[in-house]
Amino acid sequence: MATVTILGAGAMGSALATPAVAAGNRVRLWGTWLDDGILAELRAGRPHPRTGVPVDHRVELHDAGGLAAALDGADLVALAISSEGVLEVARRAAAAGLAPGTPLPLCTKGFGRRPDGRVELLPALLAPVLPGPVVAVGGPCKANEVAAGRPTAAVFAGADGAAVERCALALATPAYRVERSRDLDGVEAAAATKNVYAIAVGVCHGLTEAGGEPWHDLAAATFTQAVAEMRRLAVALGGREETVLGLAGVGDLEVTSLSGRNRVFGTRVGRGEPPSEALAAMAAAGQTVEGVPAARLARELATTLGAQGALSLLAAVNQILDGHPDPAGLLAGAVLPR
Amino acid sequence: MATVTILGAGAMGSALATPAVAAGNRVRLWGTWLDDGILAELRAGRPHPRTGVPVDHRVELHDAGGLAAALDGADLVALAISSEGVLEVARRAAAAGLAPGTPLPLCTKGFGRRPDGRVELLPALLAPVLPGPVVAVGGPCKANEVAAGRPTAAVFAGADGAAVERCALALATPAYRVERSRDLDGVEAAAATKNVYAIAVGVCHGLTEAGGEPWHDLAAATFTQAVAEMRRLAVALGGREETVLGLAGVGDLEVTSLSGRNRVFGTRVGRGEPPSEALAAMAAAGQTVEGVPAARLARELATTLGAQGALSLLAAVNQILDGHPDPAGLLAGAVLPR
Repeated sequence: MATVTILGAGAMGSALATPAVAAGNRVRLWGTWLDDGILAELRAGRPHPRTGVPVDHRVELHDAGGLAAALDGADLVALAISSEGVLEVARRAAAAGLAPGTPLPLCTKGFGRRPDGRVELLPALLAPVLPGPVVAVGGPCKANEVAAGRPTAAVFAGADGAAVERCALALATPAYRVERSRDLDGVEAAAATKNVYAIAVGVCHGLTEAGGEPWHDLAAATFTQAVAEMRRLAVALGGREETVLGLAGVGDLEVTSLSGRNRVFGTRVGRGEPPSEALAAMAAAGQTVEGVPAARLARELATTLGAQGALSLLAAVNQILDGHPDPAGLLAGAVLPR
Repeated sequence: MATVTILGAGAMGSALATPAVAAGNRVRLWGTWLDDGILAELRAGRPHPRTGVPVDHRVELHDAGGLAAALDGADLVALAISSEGVLEVARRAAAAGLAPGTPLPLCTKGFGRRPDGRVELLPALLAPVLPGPVVAVGGPCKANEVAAGRPTAAVFAGADGAAVERCALALATPAYRVERSRDLDGVEAAAATKNVYAIAVGVCHGLTEAGGEPWHDLAAATFTQAVAEMRRLAVALGGREETVLGLAGVGDLEVTSLSGRNRVFGTRVGRGEPPSEALAAMAAAGQTVEGVPAARLARELATTLGAQGALSLLAAVNQILDGHPDPAGLLAGAVLPR
């Protein structure tokens, strides 16, 4: 029995409490300064507002001011914060007594900027701040399904194999299965870029909805090109192609293309809504679309790495986000054979 | 301008007439002894009963008795017959004057048996009968979308590069794009096995429909395992892994998992319908589910090749077809990490 602290009471943080409790751990869920409303719902015994699933009554709830208590004696500390907030929470956790060497499963995905402006994947930005080994959590793991205890495949990856194993032993259950990997860069690259490409697949499904006729061939060709570009980006970022071809890449892209905010945003654009309006409407409903900033940052990073040449779909997504008037033609040009 | 003869007036045969006409060819569409009703609809100017799209008025329609006239002087002869009928039609075409050396684009997919009972992919069965080079046609090409002229990516593959090029030059259009490949075995293996695996993905979507809660994580893990097993099967059959990772594999699996008979059959089973009843109901509606015999034959072929060990999902699909009472548990056991 380990003490597992989860930082972030949003959809994924609260969801992770399900396997953490089912695996027999003492579980603490800490909410950020933005999560007070969520904690109030959970304390009242109501379902999580985002997953629709209640959090087990044995989970200790800690609010933003109780960070030190939430971290005290924790054997594992999972980070499940939005990508904009994760660096700040990491700093606060380090200051609040996060013990050196504590394994840190990282559910947050995406890119960020170093102080010198260079774009990086999140673990490279977090490493100088955090005193323990980061373990990337990837794979097709929708929060609502993890929370409900339906069958899910996660990939835990880190350079520190012992830390990966400790996280996997603590969190794996018969429903929440965990594949172990050493390829942290590959898992992080796949997880960050799949959000971008799920937007493109969503655009094709929006074309289908708009016209009443399927654009499935284009959607499938877009998916295929996405896998090819995710392989290239992962390799450029130090990861392995096989990681992209497994659960952390193909699997996560598939589930992200089936549902979720990036898919929904793409579908709205494919139906004809200007991207800026779709984004504003979703933001007003409290829905951030992580693939949008990731598309910009991935393009910038690819340029830095000299890898942008073969990334025609990434370029097309950026043009679509810029308001190009013909998303269908752009995608066809980017993903079909010449 | 070439003379293109298409054998088979079903969904894919008639669909191929769209790019063949658009590319400026003289096009003939020959219907088998089962296609009389379809030809009558087309002759009356009505849409094709399966694709919902009319065939261009310039297409010459030939019925079963007019095979020799349909073949006379043809530069390309495409085979778009059901997998059960293709060998018989090939024999009749050879007897009716099919000219030696004529490139033969093959849209039919699946496995069959040699006279000695051994399971083979279709080109190996057709080669002794046909006097020209077979060119496998793969990729995400739904007949209704090809017929309607929406953007589609095909893969043409054959050992005879000149024959592949002649087919591609004759049939490619701005909408129907063609990738050239030498990997006939890889394209055929991927095309035949994707029908099997689309059933499994369909089962997960049926679980979603039955319970009202998404099983997308399991669907995505199933998709990922499908890609892994399609790679193994393609290599065992003499093909290349990269073919499976491109349009002919990942792309075709994606589109087949989005819609079509194999997906529909799997969804019915996932909703709780016994496989035998779902199959009978679809057969009564004129819908053959090619993945069902392909699942049996692929397993038999894998056993012959000594490749069945790592094919846990193929085994699970066969057990589901045998009426196993817990498809969800079977799939979870076959596709999630241990």
